[in-house]
Amino acid sequence: MSDSFKEILETFPNPHPNRDYLIETVCPEFTSVCPKTGQPDFGTLTITYIANEHCFELKSLKLYLQEYRNHGAFYEDVTNLILNDLVKITQPKWMQIIADFTPRGGIRTKVTVEYPSLAIHSQG
Amino acid sequence: MSDSFKEILETFPNPHPNRDYLIETVCPEFTSVCPKTGQPDFGTLTITYIANEHCFELKSLKLYLQEYRNHGAFYEDVTNLILNDLVKITQPKWMQIIADFTPRGGIRTKVTVEYPSLAIHSQG
Amino acid sequence: MSDSFKEILETFPNPHPNRDYLIETVCPEFTSVCPKTGQPDFGTLTITYIANEHCFELKSLKLYLQEYRNHGAFYEDVTNLILNDLVKITQPKWMQIIADFTPRGGIRTKVTVEYPSLAIHSQG
Amino acid sequence: MSDSFKEILETFPNPHPNRDYLIETVCPEFTSVCPKTGQPDFGTLTITYIANEHCFELKSLKLYLQEYRNHGAFYEDVTNLILNDLVKITQPKWMQIIADFTPRGGIRTKVTVEYPSLAIHSQG
Amino acid sequence: MSDSFKEILETFPNPHPNRDYLIETVCPEFTSVCPKTGQPDFGTLTITYIANEHCFELKSLKLYLQEYRNHGAFYEDVTNLILNDLVKITQPKWMQIIADFTPRGGIRTKVTVEYPSLAIHSQG
Amino acid sequence: MSDSFKEILETFPNPHPNRDYLIETVCPEFTSVCPKTGQPDFGTLTITYIANEHCFELKSLKLYLQEYRNHGAFYEDVTNLILNDLVKITQPKWMQIIADFTPRGGIRTKVTVEYPSLAIHSQG
Amino acid sequence: MSDSFKEILETFPNPHPNRDYLIETVCPEFTSVCPKTGQPDFGTLTITYIANEHCFELKSLKLYLQEYRNHGAFYEDVTNLILNDLVKITQPKWMQIIADFTPRGGIRTKVTVEYPSLAIHSQG
Amino acid sequence: MSDSFKEILETFPNPHPNRDYLIETVCPEFTSVCPKTGQPDFGTLTITYIANEHCFELKSLKLYLQEYRNHGAFYEDVTNLILNDLVKITQPKWMQIIADFTPRGGIRTKVTVEYPSLAIHSQG
Amino acid sequence: MSDSFKEILETFPNPHPNRDYLIETVCPEFTSVCPKTGQPDFGTLTITYIANEHCFELKSLKLYLQEYRNHGAFYEDVTNLILNDLVKITQPKWMQIIADFTPRGGIRTKVTVEYPSLAIHSQG
Amino acid sequence: MSDSFKEILETFPNPHPNRDYLIETVCPEFTSVCPKTGQPDFGTLTITYIANEHCFELKSLKLYLQEYRNHGAFYEDVTNLILNDLVKITQPKWMQIIADFTPRGGIRTKVTVEYPSLAIHSQG
Repeated sequence: MSDSFKEILETFPNPHPNRDYLIETVCPEFTSVCPKTGQPDFGTLTITYIANEHCFELKSLKLYLQEYRNHGAFYEDVTNLILNDLVKITQPKWMQIIADFTPRGGIRTKVTVEYPSLAIHSQG
Repeated sequence: MSDSFKEILETFPNPHPNRDYLIETVCPEFTSVCPKTGQPDFGTLTITYIANEHCFELKSLKLYLQEYRNHGAFYEDVTNLILNDLVKITQPKWMQIIADFTPRGGIRTKVTVEYPSLAIHSQG
Repeated sequence: MSDSFKEILETFPNPHPNRDYLIETVCPEFTSVCPKTGQPDFGTLTITYIANEHCFELKSLKLYLQEYRNHGAFYEDVTNLILNDLVKITQPKWMQIIADFTPRGGIRTKVTVEYPSLAIHSQG
Repeated sequence: MSDSFKEILETFPNPHPNRDYLIETVCPEFTSVCPKTGQPDFGTLTITYIANEHCFELKSLKLYLQEYRNHGAFYEDVTNLILNDLVKITQPKWMQIIADFTPRGGIRTKVTVEYPSLAIHSQG
Repeated sequence: MSDSFKEILETFPNPHPNRDYLIETVCPEFTSVCPKTGQPDFGTLTITYIANEHCFELKSLKLYLQEYRNHGAFYEDVTNLILNDLVKITQPKWMQIIADFTPRGGIRTKVTVEYPSLAIHSQG
Repeated sequence: MSDSFKEILETFPNPHPNRDYLIETVCPEFTSVCPKTGQPDFGTLTITYIANEHCFELKSLKLYLQEYRNHGAFYEDVTNLILNDLVKITQPKWMQIIADFTPRGGIRTKVTVEYPSLAIHSQG
Repeated sequence: MSDSFKEILETFPNPHPNRDYLIETVCPEFTSVCPKTGQPDFGTLTITYIANEHCFELKSLKLYLQEYRNHGAFYEDVTNLILNDLVKITQPKWMQIIADFTPRGGIRTKVTVEYPSLAIHSQG
Repeated sequence: MSDSFKEILETFPNPHPNRDYLIETVCPEFTSVCPKTGQPDFGTLTITYIANEHCFELKSLKLYLQEYRNHGAFYEDVTNLILNDLVKITQPKWMQIIADFTPRGGIRTKVTVEYPSLAIHSQG
Repeated sequence: MSDSFKEILETFPNPHPNRDYLIETVCPEFTSVCPKTGQPDFGTLTITYIANEHCFELKSLKLYLQEYRNHGAFYEDVTNLILNDLVKITQPKWMQIIADFTPRGGIRTKVTVEYPSLAIHSQG
Repeated sequence: MSDSFKEILETFPNPHPNRDYLIETVCPEFTSVCPKTGQPDFGTLTITYIANEHCFELKSLKLYLQEYRNHGAFYEDVTNLILNDLVKITQPKWMQIIADFTPRGGIRTKVTVEYPSLAIHSQG
C-alpha cells in the first residue's frame, strides 16, 4: 500500500549539506479512514528531521498525505508507515514524526516515532 | 477488585514491534467515587507507553475505565492499580500514567506513576 | 511557631510503597500576613513528593495551611518552614515546594525549596 | 554610574542558609531611557538566585530599579550592570537575570546573564 | 547575493566580553518572495547568540532583513544564509536562528540552524 | 422521573429580595448516561437567575445533579427538565441554563434554555 | 446534488416544543473538495437553531456532512446548501450556520447564513 | 455588622464631576469565612461605577475589604452589603459589583448586583 | 493610484442572492510602506460584507493586496481606499474593513471603516 | 499643567472626512508618577475616535504621553485631562479613552471616559 504512495514524494538537494540543522513541517489537515468503522479520522502530523543529501519537497508531501484521505489506516500503523516512506526517500540523519489525532469516544491519541531510534530520555 | 476490571481490557499485536515508539492516550473523562465521602471525583488520565508485543485496544480501555464510575477509589491507589492492570495486559517496555484530578476543597492533586521505574531526573 | 501547626497534619500509609511515584498537590488559596506591614499576602503552593511509608492527608493539609491565615510570615521563611513540617511528618524520599506569591508593589516572588537537595540542573 | 545606585540596595540574612533553594523575583515595570534616541525603553526583569548569607530586600530592589527610570542604558549593558550590583551586594551561590524588553521597530530583545557562569546546556 | 546584504550589518563592541551571556532577538516581520511561485512568504526569525567581541546592531539588522523583502529565497536556504552572514560579521561563540514561516497550502515550516554545531539533544 | 430528584433540592430565603441581582452557578462536573448507547455523557451546566423569594442551596444542587450520574438523559431533554425543577422550587423572576457537553463523534452540543422566555436578540 | 444528501438526515420530535430554546452543534471536522483546484478544504461548522416540531439527529448529521468529503463545493455555496437542507428537514423557528474555513494562500474565510433572515445588528 | 466596616471607607472629590465616566476597580484578593462551615472563601470583586460628587479612595477600600477576612459571610449577602456600603459613602449615579468566587465542591458562583437597578438586557 | 490596483480584482456571481448572509475574509499578511519613513508596515485586514449580485474572488483579492507591498500608504488612508475599491467592484449591501496594524514606537493602530455607514452603536 | 503638554500634539487633515470611521490607538507604555507616594504608575491607554476634520499624529502623541513620565497624576484625573487635550486639538465627532493601570496593593483600576457623552448602555 504505502509503496505506491511513496512514489508521489519528491526531493530536492539539501542546500547546506555540510551543516546539521532541523527542518520541522507541521501538517494540521491529515485525514484518513478508520479500517474498523469506516469513519474518517483527523490529525496533525509534525515531521522534524536533519537532512543528509535530500530534503522532501513540500508540495509533493501534501499530495502524498492526501492519498490517505480515503484509505483505511490505524493510528499506530499509519504513523510508522509514513516514517518508513519519508526515511526511504530522504535517507535523513534523524527524523521524528508526531501524529496527534482528534478525540474519538472522549479519548485522544498521539503517536511519536523516530528514526533511527527513539530518544527515550527526551520524552519529558 | 482490579482483577475483575482487567478482564475487560483487550490488546492487539504491535504493528511495528521492531521500532521503539511512544503511544500517548489522553482520557479526560475519568470519574470514580471517593470511598470516604461517597462523592464523585473527576480527572484526566494520560497514559504513555512503549509497546512490546501488545498494544491496548482503545474501545476496551474506555469500557475498562468506565468500570470505576461507581467504584470507591483513592487518588494515589487507583492510579497505581490502573498502571498494574495495563502493565499486566500489555507487558510494555515502559509505561507512565499521569492522573490529574479536579479541585476538592480548593486543592487539586496529580499522581504520576511509571513502569518499570520513575525517571526522577525528568520531573522538571 | 511552626511546631504547633505541624500537629494538625495527618498521614496515611503509602498504598504502593514498593514503587517510586510522584504526588503533586496544588493549593492556590494560601494566605498569610506580612510581619512588617500587617497586610495579607496571597500565594499558590505546589507540593510534589515521592512518598516513603507515609502520605500526608489532604484535609489535614488544608487545615494546616489555614493556620497561616492570621500568622506573620516572610515569603522565604514560610516556604522553608512548611517544607520542614511536611518532611518531618512524612519522611519522604524527595519533596519540593514551589510557593508563587501575587505581586506587591509591581513585583512578584516565587520560592522553590527541595528536600534533600536542590536539583540545580533542573531549574531551566 | 551603577555604583551609586547599588547603595540603595539592602539585604537581610538568609533565614535558611543551610539549604540551597531558589528565589525568583519578577519585575514587569522596569523602564530606562535609550542613550541614542532619548526614548524610554520598557522591560520585564526576572531575577533568580540561590542565596548564600544574604537575600536582597524587595522594597530596596524596587527603589534601586527606579533609579534607571531617567537613566540612559543599552539593553545588553544594563542587564549585566544590574547583575554585577546584585552579586556584589548578596554574594549568591548562583544568580540569573533575564531582561525581556518590549518591541522597538518590530524587533524585541531578551538578554540572559548568569553568575558565576552561563549554563549553556539549559538554554532550550 | 547574500554578500552584498551583509555589508548593511553593523556591529558594536560587546560591553561585557568577559562574561558569556545570551542575547535573543525576535523579528516577527520577516518577509521574502518564493522563487518558484513569486508569492510573498512571511515568517518570524528568532536569533540567539553568545557574543565574542562583537554584537550586531539592531537597526542595521532591521535594514539587512528588509533587503529580503523583494528577494527570492527558499526557507531552508535563506535561514542558513542569514546565519552565515551574522556569524561572519560577529564571530560569536554560539549562534542559533529559528525561522518559523506562516502556513502555505495548510502546511507550515520551521527551520533551526546553529553555529558551530547543532545541539541535537536539546531539540525536545 | 425528574419529580423525585426535585425533592432533593433545598432553598433559602433571598437575603435581598428588594433588589434584582444575578446569581450565576457553574457546575463543570455534570455527567449522565446516553439512553441510546448506555455510554456516559459529560457537560458543564451554567445556571444564572434573578431570585424572587427563594435561592437554591448549593449543596443540595450538587446532590440533585449527582442523581443524573446513572440516569439515561438526552441533551435537549435533560436541560429542559433541570430548568423545570429549578423554576418550580425557586419561582425565579428569570432563569437561564446553558448546558455545554463534551464532543461525541467529533461533534459537540450546547443547549440554552430560559424561563420565562428566550431573549432571542441576546444570542450573539 | 444536495437533495440526495438530505435523505441521510433524520429528525426526532422536539421534547419541549412549548418552550423556545437554543441548540448549538459544533462540527470541527467538516471537509470538502475545492471544485477549482481539486484540493481538500477544511472547516468548522457551528449550527444553532430554535426547533419547532423537529430536531435533527446528531449521528445522521455526521453522516450527512461526511457526504461532502469527496464532493466539490465553494465556501459560500456549500454553507447555504447545508442551511437549505437542515431547514427543509426540521422547519425550525430560526437557524444559523457559521462555517469557518482554514487558511488558503494566507487568507481564511468565514460564512454566516441565517433562516429566516440575517440579524444584521448582532454581527458585532 | 456592615455599618462599622463602612466607617473605614474614605472618599475624595470627583475631579471631573461634569462628565459621566466609568471607574472600574478589580480586587482579586477578597477573602471571607463561610458562616456554615467556618472554611475560608476566596473571590475577585469587580466594582464599576459612575461617580457623582465622590469617588472612594483605593487604600481605604483595601482596608475595608480586609475587614471581611475573618468575618462570616454568604456569597449573595456579602455582595449586596458591600454595594450598600459603597453606595451610601459615594452616592454614585450608577454602580455595579461582580463577585466571582473560587469553586467549592466542584461548583463556582458569581453574584452581580447593581445600583440603582439591574440592567437585565446587558447580561449577555 | 488605487484605480489601477482595482483592475486586478475579479468577482463571481453571488450563488444565493436572495438571502442576506455574511462573508468574512481575514488577510493577516498585508504589508505596505510608510510614505514618511520608507519603512514597511504590517497588518491584518478583516473584510466582512453582505453581497448583492457579486462576490469578490479570493485569489484576485490576494493579488490586489500584494500590490501595496512596495507602495506608500498611511494607515487611515489605505483602509478607506481598499474599502472604496471593494465597494466599487462588488456593490455590496454592506461592507466593513478592520485593519489592525502591528506596533510602531510602542503604539499600535486599528482602523474600522464601513459602507454605507458606520454602525456607531456596535463599537462595544 | 496639561495646557503646556497639549502644545506638543500635532494633527493632520482627515484624509476621508466624508465617511465616519473609527481609529483606535493602543499605547501600552504609559507611565506617570503617583502624586501621593511618588511611586511610578504604569498603564495602557486605548484611544478610539471618529475624526472630524483632524486626526492626531502618532509620533506627537507618543511625545505628548511621555511628558507624563515624571509628572504627578491621579488615575481618574489624568485620563480626563488627556481626553480634554485630544478633544481640543482634534475636535472629533466622538472619542473614548480607556486607561487600564497595573495593580497596586493587589487592586487594579481602569478608567473609561468619552466625549461628548458616555454611552452607558454599551458598558457590557
